[in-house]
Amino acid sequence: LKTNFDCYPCFLRQALKAARLSGADEVQQYTVIQQTLALLQTLPLGLTPPEMAHQVYKLIREVLDTQDPYFETKKMNTRQALALYPHMKTLVQNSPDPLDMAIRLSIAGNIIDFAVIDEMNDLWQSVERLIQKPFAIDERNTFKQALQKAGYILYLSDNAGETVFDRVLIETLSVPVVYAVKSKPILNDAILSDALDAGLDTCARLMENGSQSLGTIMSLCSSEFRQHFEQAPLIIAKGQANYETLSEADKRIFCFLQAKCPVIAQDMDVPVGSVILRQCKN
Amino acid sequence: LKTNFDCYPCFLRQALKAARLSGADEVQQYTVIQQTLALLQTLPLGLTPPEMAHQVYKLIREVLDTQDPYFETKKMNTRQALALYPHMKTLVQNSPDPLDMAIRLSIAGNIIDFAVIDEMNDLWQSVERLIQKPFAIDERNTFKQALQKAGYILYLSDNAGETVFDRVLIETLSVPVVYAVKSKPILNDAILSDALDAGLDTCARLMENGSQSLGTIMSLCSSEFRQHFEQAPLIIAKGQANYETLSEADKRIFCFLQAKCPVIAQDMDVPVGSVILRQCKN
Repeated sequence: LKTNFDCYPCFLRQALKAARLSGADEVQQYTVIQQTLALLQTLPLGLTPPEMAHQVYKLIREVLDTQDPYFETKKMNTRQALALYPHMKTLVQNSPDPLDMAIRLSIAGNIIDFAVIDEMNDLWQSVERLIQKPFAIDERNTFKQALQKAGYILYLSDNAGETVFDRVLIETLSVPVVYAVKSKPILNDAILSDALDAGLDTCARLMENGSQSLGTIMSLCSSEFRQHFEQAPLIIAKGQANYETLSEADKRIFCFLQAKCPVIAQDMDVPVGSVILRQCKN
Repeated sequence: LKTNFDCYPCFLRQALKAARLSGADEVQQYTVIQQTLALLQTLPLGLTPPEMAHQVYKLIREVLDTQDPYFETKKMNTRQALALYPHMKTLVQNSPDPLDMAIRLSIAGNIIDFAVIDEMNDLWQSVERLIQKPFAIDERNTFKQALQKAGYILYLSDNAGETVFDRVLIETLSVPVVYAVKSKPILNDAILSDALDAGLDTCARLMENGSQSLGTIMSLCSSEFRQHFEQAPLIIAKGQANYETLSEADKRIFCFLQAKCPVIAQDMDVPVGSVILRQCKN
């Protein structure tokens, strides 16, 4: 998925939101706006949105002089999701189809975005609404068939907090899981410490992908991760950025996401807010 | 109201939307984005949003090499609103309080924005919903009292199409009205020909304000208009841009609008989408 013209105002909006969430004062916010305006003029067309976002968030880290502007946000989101963990386990255990419920929860967890979640009730209400929502693209059956043949799964994580929802799915799966996180902070994406906070080490082998980018930009990943990626019989890719950056022709990859932005929703021909489980293929 | 940082991404979004509505091809759209990015870097802080928009839309006219990119959109919106005119007249005539219904309709007409209205039903449904909506800021009584003492009204127009809703109100008022429009095209704001298309000449004296700017930026208006403005005993100011540009301390001015953008809604301390009738005062 290439960057659409609609992504330009969205990047500017995200940059401002990110600066504010990081506690930037008015002067820093204005600096972020000005430098983002300048940056967006210099980036070539044809990049994917995560490739452009990589540059935008690098700029924000530099202006704010911090390596992890979302440190507090991520800690809080993980705490909030952990508080829901017992409820999620009960839902899965009481479900007539535990795997299906765990898949639904894992996609529902993709609602945790880098906005601050004010009310725990709101989050749980959103989750309850999302697990009942019909899938707009539904390749669960193909996924479940692939699952029966796979010796293990490579699981590409997305945001901190969403990690706890991933943990519920992984604990429900009967095959071993390698859980890949980013090596360095980018937005609110999970890094190793976030995965540990969410207890992923109790149910999966953790690995870093070598990059500090949204999604999976293969050229920025470590050779170790690339080797894992090439060998994995089955890959779960969480969230929009993984959908945007991964090959459209790799049938081992199943994207679990909510289509949160209009550009992606249009690319998939679904309404914004749709629940998606989609195999990568042409 | 000064430009908020949130206005920056919004200007970029509006510029792209405007370019597309004007039939710009991909190359022109990209040029508009690039030049808007450059322009936003050079504009000083402290301008009002309409002052910044003035620059942005000037740029669009230059890139697209047209004086009136919204010519077709305005014609269509006026046609669509005229189709509703008989329904509106019936509503007013059958109302126990015709003036109040006409005020509500005039504010409901502010829903006509520069987006294309696809379905006539949608527009009428929106109007019916809006005329039933409680006012978030309600100074109708003060306005009605001022109306009884006023010898005439200066009516500051907003968008083409909305003009037809203004006409219904003006036909219901018992005092003469001077209806002011922009002198040259800016966005989808009404100019003289749009007011004529809507039939305003049958119920009001039409005048141009001398400017090619959103709202009423006094320094850009003609001396003839400024004189009228200074002498008018009562002024109706339609839409957000007039609210943004007019004095907060002039009790002769009553703003009729819907709070469509988050910055204005926050400034007024009301939810986005609120129906507002507000006297300018401190």
